[in-house]
Amino acid sequence: MLAKHGVVISGLGRFTSHSPSSSTVLRRQQFLVRALCGSNSKIHRPKLIRAMSSTSEADAESVLRTVTPSLDPKRHKGQAGKIAVIGGCREYTGAPYFAAISALKIGADLSHVFCTKDAAPVIKSYSPELIVHPVLEESYSISHYSEESQREVQERVLGEVDKWMERFDCLVIGPGLGRDPFLLECVSKIMSLAKKSNVPFVVDGDGLFLVTNSIDLVKSYPLAVLTPNVNEYKRLVQKVLNCEVDEQNAEDQLRSLAKQIGGVTILRKGKSDLISNGETVKSVSIYGSPRRCGGQGDILSGSVAVFLSWAQQLKSGPESGSENPAMLGCIAASGLLRKAASLAFAKHKRSTLTSDIIECLGESLEEICPAS
Amino acid sequence: MLAKHGVVISGLGRFTSHSPSSSTVLRRQQFLVRALCGSNSKIHRPKLIRAMSSTSEADAESVLRTVTPSLDPKRHKGQAGKIAVIGGCREYTGAPYFAAISALKIGADLSHVFCTKDAAPVIKSYSPELIVHPVLEESYSISHYSEESQREVQERVLGEVDKWMERFDCLVIGPGLGRDPFLLECVSKIMSLAKKSNVPFVVDGDGLFLVTNSIDLVKSYPLAVLTPNVNEYKRLVQKVLNCEVDEQNAEDQLRSLAKQIGGVTILRKGKSDLISNGETVKSVSIYGSPRRCGGQGDILSGSVAVFLSWAQQLKSGPESGSENPAMLGCIAASGLLRKAASLAFAKHKRSTLTSDIIECLGESLEEICPAS
Repeated sequence: MLAKHGVVISGLGRFTSHSPSSSTVLRRQQFLVRALCGSNSKIHRPKLIRAMSSTSEADAESVLRTVTPSLDPKRHKGQAGKIAVIGGCREYTGAPYFAAISALKIGADLSHVFCTKDAAPVIKSYSPELIVHPVLEESYSISHYSEESQREVQERVLGEVDKWMERFDCLVIGPGLGRDPFLLECVSKIMSLAKKSNVPFVVDGDGLFLVTNSIDLVKSYPLAVLTPNVNEYKRLVQKVLNCEVDEQNAEDQLRSLAKQIGGVTILRKGKSDLISNGETVKSVSIYGSPRRCGGQGDILSGSVAVFLSWAQQLKSGPESGSENPAMLGCIAASGLLRKAASLAFAKHKRSTLTSDIIECLGESLEEICPAS
Repeated sequence: MLAKHGVVISGLGRFTSHSPSSSTVLRRQQFLVRALCGSNSKIHRPKLIRAMSSTSEADAESVLRTVTPSLDPKRHKGQAGKIAVIGGCREYTGAPYFAAISALKIGADLSHVFCTKDAAPVIKSYSPELIVHPVLEESYSISHYSEESQREVQERVLGEVDKWMERFDCLVIGPGLGRDPFLLECVSKIMSLAKKSNVPFVVDGDGLFLVTNSIDLVKSYPLAVLTPNVNEYKRLVQKVLNCEVDEQNAEDQLRSLAKQIGGVTILRKGKSDLISNGETVKSVSIYGSPRRCGGQGDILSGSVAVFLSWAQQLKSGPESGSENPAMLGCIAASGLLRKAASLAFAKHKRSTLTSDIIECLGESLEEICPAS
């Protein structure tokens, strides 16, 4: 993944010749190295310790500033991120749209959706900015096929997704996926393809239903992120830890859960968002809104995908840095969504919709991390 | 083409009786003649030399002012340009929409899209302003046909396009075309029809994939414009010049490439846009934005089509002027897109999408070249 972006950090400051704006990037990189490894800088240290210590509130705004790449006219299309959402079926079309458009609004260059044939024209009609592939199939459209023909359909679906896989910096698997068995089986295999190509993925919504029932799909894949809400988290805890959610020891339980799934990163959504990769636990409590309109989770999953892929670009080589891009991506996405939700709520109050929050993503990011 | 527009320039100043506003048009025409042929005018010469010398930065704003026709209440629908986009398939619908709506936003009177049956309802839903013809076919919908029936389908497709051909001032071939072999074969034949009718065309996106593999489709057609991005340019150079891209001699290499393809015009998109017809090379570096969201190339191809057709209206007869309308169209389109992108970026920063840039086309053109 690193080579694809043309930005490689190794040791304490060397960049490849592709580094687009070395002084800016160097500054950000030094900032990140200090954030991850500790530093003697009197200016940054208190903030960074707060951001990165093992169980505290993350400094989400600092992480956002660290992870977000500088814009440079020398870069070309695709270098700021290519995201794909796997989701969207006959029943659900809004969720994959929200995830995919959020990725663009944050600054990704290209955003794809892989959905069923029925969902595609609708998702396309929401926005000409998305590239929508009508390739997934649900049982109802193939139930009269022979077993062999069904296998052929599955192979075709996988081929259609796999030919794009290497181009993506991150997938979002689950928004508006539905629970059709044939579709979910295909999606299981798409997860395997992503792992084979080392493409990170964020699992949300019906993707979490799939993963909770087949935990091996994500187990020990360090580039997997799960973003459960209250109920999805409850089912995960029951299934994996074989117990109930323990609010008194929420952080320890989350850490155990992530560890038990082999070090995947879990973002547990709530009044405060809690994030763990099985080692550290971070919370993000800034901003936020009391409005709970459906769809905010889709903004979050699309945002995690972008910030994770940006953090991957900054990621130091295997010899350095203990923090992983998935943690940074989750902290950044949580902070940004919470700020956008609070801005949207200030404007629209009870009538705030998910689209209003999406419209505030750019302004929120600009306030925290000005583009120039 | 000239007769269609009712404006013919011959020698140094004579217009047909259709010329709608002779004093304004005369002024613009004299300006253009000086731009193309050189002049002793002390007022204009420095600017024009800068705009038109053989390898320098073009004065894109001057070219925009020269090429853009004055608005005159006496003119009727169609005289300011009729553009058609050939593109849009099951997978891609945003790109042809962006190209077609950009043409209208700049000032063309009519903008058509010829796409597949699946793409048409979606493209229609983006905007009621476009005329969308659901006439193209992809292999999947005709694969069970006999060879003869497939030939009949092809003939029908070509008939549907050809009956409109004479009415168009310029085609844009490629945005969201996809790579279906049956569809691409039809599009090859559409290019032949366009050449037969002397209709200029701009080739972008998947149209460039087609042309790179069959260079004869455009070879020696002076009304063809290719608008490759970094990767498309690389493939063109490899295929035609049988070597790699040489950044040290970018201008010479571009000139050689355009010459080798028989004097087509190539707009090589990048941090600076480089434009050559095999004779001169111009760069356009003004304005611009560091945002690289997908779809900006579609705005450019639609814009080139409009400005090229306007430059055709101004074009002097075969006996005069060394500069061609395709060069002027490319310079104008590049300058306008770069200005619109910079305005959109100033407003939306990292969240700038292609639709935001399209919304700034009118304002940008008005600032450079006020309508009244």
